[in-house]
Amino acid sequence: MNTRNLTLLTDLYELTMMQGYFEKQQTETVIFDMFYRSNPSKGGYAICAGLEQVIDYVKNLHFDEADVEYLRSLGIFKEPFLAYLRDFKFSGSIYAIPEGTVVFPQEPLVKVIAPILEAQLVETAILNIINHQSLIATKASRIVYAAGSGVMEFGLRRAQGPDAGIFGARAAMIAGCVGTSNVLAGQAFDVPVMGTHAHSWIMTFEDEYTAFKHYASLYPDNCTLLVDTYDTLKSGVPNAIRVFQEFKASDTPLKRFGIRLDSGDLAYLSKEARKMLDSAGLQEAYITASNDLDEYLIHDLKMQQAKIDSWGVGTNLITSEDCPAFGGVYKLAAVSDGGGNFIPKIKISENSAKITNPGDKTVHRIYEKESGKIKADLISFADETFNSEDDLLLFDPIDTWKKTLMKGGTYEVRELLTPIFKDGACIYHSPSVKEIAAYCQQEKDTLWDETKRLFYPHPVFVDLSQKLYDVKQELLNKLG
Amino acid sequence: MNTRNLTLLTDLYELTMMQGYFEKQQTETVIFDMFYRSNPSKGGYAICAGLEQVIDYVKNLHFDEADVEYLRSLGIFKEPFLAYLRDFKFSGSIYAIPEGTVVFPQEPLVKVIAPILEAQLVETAILNIINHQSLIATKASRIVYAAGSGVMEFGLRRAQGPDAGIFGARAAMIAGCVGTSNVLAGQAFDVPVMGTHAHSWIMTFEDEYTAFKHYASLYPDNCTLLVDTYDTLKSGVPNAIRVFQEFKASDTPLKRFGIRLDSGDLAYLSKEARKMLDSAGLQEAYITASNDLDEYLIHDLKMQQAKIDSWGVGTNLITSEDCPAFGGVYKLAAVSDGGGNFIPKIKISENSAKITNPGDKTVHRIYEKESGKIKADLISFADETFNSEDDLLLFDPIDTWKKTLMKGGTYEVRELLTPIFKDGACIYHSPSVKEIAAYCQQEKDTLWDETKRLFYPHPVFVDLSQKLYDVKQELLNKLG
Repeated sequence: MNTRNLTLLTDLYELTMMQGYFEKQQTETVIFDMFYRSNPSKGGYAICAGLEQVIDYVKNLHFDEADVEYLRSLGIFKEPFLAYLRDFKFSGSIYAIPEGTVVFPQEPLVKVIAPILEAQLVETAILNIINHQSLIATKASRIVYAAGSGVMEFGLRRAQGPDAGIFGARAAMIAGCVGTSNVLAGQAFDVPVMGTHAHSWIMTFEDEYTAFKHYASLYPDNCTLLVDTYDTLKSGVPNAIRVFQEFKASDTPLKRFGIRLDSGDLAYLSKEARKMLDSAGLQEAYITASNDLDEYLIHDLKMQQAKIDSWGVGTNLITSEDCPAFGGVYKLAAVSDGGGNFIPKIKISENSAKITNPGDKTVHRIYEKESGKIKADLISFADETFNSEDDLLLFDPIDTWKKTLMKGGTYEVRELLTPIFKDGACIYHSPSVKEIAAYCQQEKDTLWDETKRLFYPHPVFVDLSQKLYDVKQELLNKLG
Repeated sequence: MNTRNLTLLTDLYELTMMQGYFEKQQTETVIFDMFYRSNPSKGGYAICAGLEQVIDYVKNLHFDEADVEYLRSLGIFKEPFLAYLRDFKFSGSIYAIPEGTVVFPQEPLVKVIAPILEAQLVETAILNIINHQSLIATKASRIVYAAGSGVMEFGLRRAQGPDAGIFGARAAMIAGCVGTSNVLAGQAFDVPVMGTHAHSWIMTFEDEYTAFKHYASLYPDNCTLLVDTYDTLKSGVPNAIRVFQEFKASDTPLKRFGIRLDSGDLAYLSKEARKMLDSAGLQEAYITASNDLDEYLIHDLKMQQAKIDSWGVGTNLITSEDCPAFGGVYKLAAVSDGGGNFIPKIKISENSAKITNPGDKTVHRIYEKESGKIKADLISFADETFNSEDDLLLFDPIDTWKKTLMKGGTYEVRELLTPIFKDGACIYHSPSVKEIAAYCQQEKDTLWDETKRLFYPHPVFVDLSQKLYDVKQELLNKLG
């Protein structure tokens, strides 16, 4: 999958602008930031994901003969520019926040420093990949938070195309799902694949009991029986109990076993099924639920003491149903003056929140030393350093009178942006999905409970350094 | 792109069920129907799409050595079954409603007739592909309906991964968009690519006028200037007018030219910009708008006489924002009795709308002869025929007292399901995307205006033949 040529996975205007820069012989280095403006699903944070696929894309960037021929056929590109494309190779540098990190609005998740033609070309694909995977990782994280544990990603059939299923499963695993039904994702990313059987399995047998019995004898290590084909409590659960008891009494007992509820009221049915299983001496049988689940329904089912041990979540996870786009943007932040310095650039807007942060920047995370929790994030120029032994005054970049003094020694600082490409060469080794998932779990532990809440969470403050704030004001005053 | 091996793009349970059928030596032929239960976005219809990619997928179905090795590593598949997979080839038959057809709930869009192992395997990918493209085609059709014409698909950066961008663009073109910004989709499907420039183009020049001037000299055949980088009415439009007038007075006039509005109130700004352009003698300059458009906003902007000639629609189209999943399902309809007959199967549910239609079926569309509009669709057994010279009594399958008598000679009948694969061989040639788009336009013309309406449309009736209705009732009574 990594060898697909996605070079033309770009908006036409990137190429028309590139030709413009090419004809004017604009070779200056520029800086673009990829960031987002508000958390999906009105949440308190996002989980960034997709970097490994961005790396694959950048490494593989090249216009092959068919690409050049196609562009020529459009009749708007001239031969010298097409010749330039034929030899195109990404020569810039990229910084990014590692996958699985908890992130907040306005922070550069990806920073591209490259000659203007190259920096422009990669815009669309970087946005496409990071927007998608960060969206699904964030949604999955919310669902895992609501469930506590045991969330399985079951959405492939409703995903927006093959990639949405494959990379959506990847993002879901990063954010804490315990497995996916998607076999191709299991193969590609070495993550657990899970699943049971469909109603059609039951319907091809003479009766439900026989269908269950066959399934159990096939998969004795982990046997989940779907109990709602005919009638959950009158037929499905009794037949499952009969099969479980028969195996329990036999020489070949099932190792792990349980039932799956896939329709009806999951709170009521799970409580009734739990009682029936327990009365039958099958306390070890687990109950899995599926059917249009999301974090809100899971939250309510748990409030109502539903007896559900694991959750198969499909459509609403894999499409991020209540918020199906991440909204990341890619904005020019600085232009080289040719002498080794970057001139900060700003994009103004009538909407204050849409005004960009100018210059070559980085992100520092400030942790409260005692709790290890995130106190705030600080966007600064890339060459600014912060010594955790010094006092640090944080202030809100809009309501500047809102100030917090961090006393030296009470906090810790960590820079989030990490070098990925240097002068065209990849200098970063992507961790495995399992490693990213373990890191993501640690990351979520640095959030206060108030920020993890599903509804009206407490926002984490993303502040600007004094120096960045001053330069931004100066630019705004000039333009105003 | 057609050569990607998507054989493992399946839910694990398809494979575990397959092994179960394999071990029981179940080789009977079965019939599965793919259909959906309600129109996206509370609309009156859907547009089916994705068949060409389903064909590519089925043609290319094979488990290569790495696939078999991966499945072996899971520890749940036995060697005889893995050997079967190594030699797997799809040998069944597939019928489908051609892409671009207007379709309604409950109708089989795809019918798979195959040995049970094969029919089970293809479930997930067929659902993934048809669900995605039908969703986006339907959403795009609604947006095109609201706009009247001139809708451009600009959503790649917010699509749910590369495929969602590529095949979403394909579906959007089928449904009537005039072009896409996605260059890879343009190349893959031979459809027009479109675009202008970004704010970053303006920001790398000393001033907006100079940036416009350069852009116009580069692209004199079709020059769209983005006018909202600094201030739309005070800076952007006046600078664009200056450039347009200079070119108009020169030896090298622009062929087609206009402006793009990308922020602010598009009704107000478009009317003001139109006045300014007209006063400057630039009646031929067009106005394009973008910025979080969907069918609802476009509908309102047009109600308010916004002076917008074309529409760049991104996020809300490419994700079908208000309804990001199509909800198609794949259900067992019949099992062969080994003697050439199919035994109808039914899946019951407490929810009447979720009860499946049993048997080997097809779909006939009934047109009113006089208007050419759709009167109703009729789901029947595949071997039933309808002669348009005979009287035809249609009745609602839930409220059976609701009846319509179609007098012989006043209607026409067309069968929608078309043979695609016969005994494993593809016998269908997919039309080009442009051809499908032209056919889709004809299809939409067969809908009454009342059904095309965005809000509370009049539903098209999907009825059952008397014979199918009777068999369904018989099966229900047996199970009840």
